[in-house]
Amino acid sequence: MLHFSECKDIIEQEIANIGLSEKSPPELYQPISYILNLGGKRIRPILSLMACNLFAGDVKPAISPSLAIEVFHNFTLLHDDIMDKAPLRRNKPTVHKKWNENIAILSGDAMSILAYQYLCKTNVEFIPELLTIFSQTALEICEGQQLDMNFETRNNVSINEYLDMIRLKTAVLLGSSLQIGALCGNAPFIETQKLYNFGVALGTAFQLQDDLLDTFGNEAEFGKTIGGDILANKKTFLYLKAIEISNEDQRNTLEKIYTETSVDSDKKIKNVISIFNDLNIQTITTNAVEKYTHQAMEFLYSVISPYSTKVLEKLALEIMDRKA
Amino acid sequence: MLHFSECKDIIEQEIANIGLSEKSPPELYQPISYILNLGGKRIRPILSLMACNLFAGDVKPAISPSLAIEVFHNFTLLHDDIMDKAPLRRNKPTVHKKWNENIAILSGDAMSILAYQYLCKTNVEFIPELLTIFSQTALEICEGQQLDMNFETRNNVSINEYLDMIRLKTAVLLGSSLQIGALCGNAPFIETQKLYNFGVALGTAFQLQDDLLDTFGNEAEFGKTIGGDILANKKTFLYLKAIEISNEDQRNTLEKIYTETSVDSDKKIKNVISIFNDLNIQTITTNAVEKYTHQAMEFLYSVISPYSTKVLEKLALEIMDRKA
Repeated sequence: MLHFSECKDIIEQEIANIGLSEKSPPELYQPISYILNLGGKRIRPILSLMACNLFAGDVKPAISPSLAIEVFHNFTLLHDDIMDKAPLRRNKPTVHKKWNENIAILSGDAMSILAYQYLCKTNVEFIPELLTIFSQTALEICEGQQLDMNFETRNNVSINEYLDMIRLKTAVLLGSSLQIGALCGNAPFIETQKLYNFGVALGTAFQLQDDLLDTFGNEAEFGKTIGGDILANKKTFLYLKAIEISNEDQRNTLEKIYTETSVDSDKKIKNVISIFNDLNIQTITTNAVEKYTHQAMEFLYSVISPYSTKVLEKLALEIMDRKA
Repeated sequence: MLHFSECKDIIEQEIANIGLSEKSPPELYQPISYILNLGGKRIRPILSLMACNLFAGDVKPAISPSLAIEVFHNFTLLHDDIMDKAPLRRNKPTVHKKWNENIAILSGDAMSILAYQYLCKTNVEFIPELLTIFSQTALEICEGQQLDMNFETRNNVSINEYLDMIRLKTAVLLGSSLQIGALCGNAPFIETQKLYNFGVALGTAFQLQDDLLDTFGNEAEFGKTIGGDILANKKTFLYLKAIEISNEDQRNTLEKIYTETSVDSDKKIKNVISIFNDLNIQTITTNAVEKYTHQAMEFLYSVISPYSTKVLEKLALEIMDRKA
C-alpha cells in the first residue's frame, strides 16, 4: 500500500507539472496556477489515491481524477473567497485581491471546466460513473454554500439544518474523493459506496472538530486566532447547540452578544465561552465528533478489499487527532 | 427533416419541464430558472438538433445535450453580466441586480455543472467524445471572455487578435453545438468536423454582422439603439479596421474620440461614422461578413449526410439575413 506521504508526492508532482502558467491568456491561467500552488494538505486527492490503492496495485487511473477533485475544491475556495470578501487564503492575498473580481470569477469558471477535463483522463469505461458522482457532488457543494450564506441572516437554524449544510458543503466531497478513487481501482460498486459513507461521516466529524478547535483549541497548535467564529458571529455547531439547550436568559444573552458589532473582542469571546461552559458545549461537541468518527470507522471496517484498510484507518485517525 | 420551429418547440418544452424552480435551496435554483426563461432565439440548441437530424430520423439522443449547450450559454451570459455590471438582459433585470452578486456567482457555477449533467444524459457511447468537445469549447469561451476584457484596456489590438477573440468567445460554441448534435445522430467524425467548421465560420460572420448592425443598422429593425458600441468605446471590427487603414490624422481623431468621456452622444456617433465612411468601413465589413458566410456554406455543402442539408442552409441564411 502507498503511504499517505507517497500519495501526497504524486499529487504535488501532478500539480507542479500541470503547465497552466504558460497557457494564454495569462490573466486567465496564472490565477489558477497561483491558487493551486498556495499549498494545502491535499487531503481529498490523497484519500482518492489511497481508496484506489485498496483495490488496485496501480493507482495511475486515479491520478488525473484525483487532481480533478483538488482543482474543483480550489475552485470552490476561490469563488467562496469572493463571496466572503476574504482578503487572505493561506496567509497570501486571495485571487480577487491580487488580481480583481472579474478575473477571480472567470478563472474560477475555467477551473470548474478543467476539473471535468482531468476527471475524464482515465480509462474510458470509468467515465460515465465518475461523472455521475462528480456532478452530483459538485451541485451539492453549491447547495451547501448557498445554505451557509442563507444561515448568516437566519435566526432559527436548527442543528439538523446545520448538519445538512456541512454535509453538503464539506463532507460529500470527501466521500466522493474516496468513491471516485475506488472506482478507478475497479472496486465493486457496493464497496465504493461504503467508502463514500466513510468519507461523509469523516468529513462531518472533521467540520465539527473545526468548530470545536476554533473556540476551544490551543492557539499555538491551531495556527489561527482562537474565537474567530465567535467574533464573526458564525452560527457553528457550538452556537446552535447552545441556543437549542439554553434557558431563556442564556439564549437572550447569547443572541444579544451575537448582534453587537462594536464590542471588546476579548470580552465578547470570554462571555460566549462562559455560556458555552455553563451548557457543557465542549463535551457535547466532542461527543458529536466522536459519534461521527465512530460511524466513519464502522463504514471503513465493513469495506471488503484485497488489501488492508489499515493505512486509510491510520490516516483518518491522524486527521481527527489533529490539534490544527 | 424537422423544421427550425419544431426544434425550437422541443427545446422550449425541455426548458419548461426542467423542474429547477422547485429545487432547494430556492436562492440557488430560482435564478437559473429565471435566466433560462428570459427567452432568446435558442439558436445553439436548435442547430444541435438539426445537425443530429441530418444523420438520424430520431433526434432524442441530442435533446439533453442540446439543453446542456443552452444552459451553458446562459451561464456565460449570467457571469458576463456580473463582469460587465450590466443592469438588464433582454429588457429584464440581470440576476445580480434582481438578487445579488453572490447569488449570481453561485447559481452560475451550478449552471455550469448542470450543463455537464444534461450533456451526459444520452447514449453512453457518445459521452466521452461529447465531453472532450464540450470541455474544450467551454474553456475556449472563458479564454475569449478574458481576451475581450483585456482588449478594453489595450490600444494595440490587431484585427487578427479580434477575430481570434470572437472565434473563442462566440463562434466555437456554434460549431460545437452542431458537432455535438451530429455526434448524437451517430454521424461519422469527419462529417461532424465539417459541421463544426461551418458553425465557427457562421458564428464569426454573425458576430461581424452584429458589429456592423450596431453602427449601420436600422434602429427600428435592430431593436437596439444605434451607436451603442461607439458610445461604449467598444473596439469592434469596424473600429479596429478603421484604425488599421486610417492615416495618422484620422487615427489620432478616432483615438481621441474614443478616450473622451463626457461628450454629446449624437455628435460622438456622427463623428465616428464620418471617419468610418471616409474609410469605406461599411463595405469592408460587409465583405468580411460575406467572406465568412461563404466559407461557412462551403463547409456545409461538403457534408455528406443521408438527408438534405437544405434546412440547415436555409436557417443559416436566415440568421445572416437578419436586420436584428
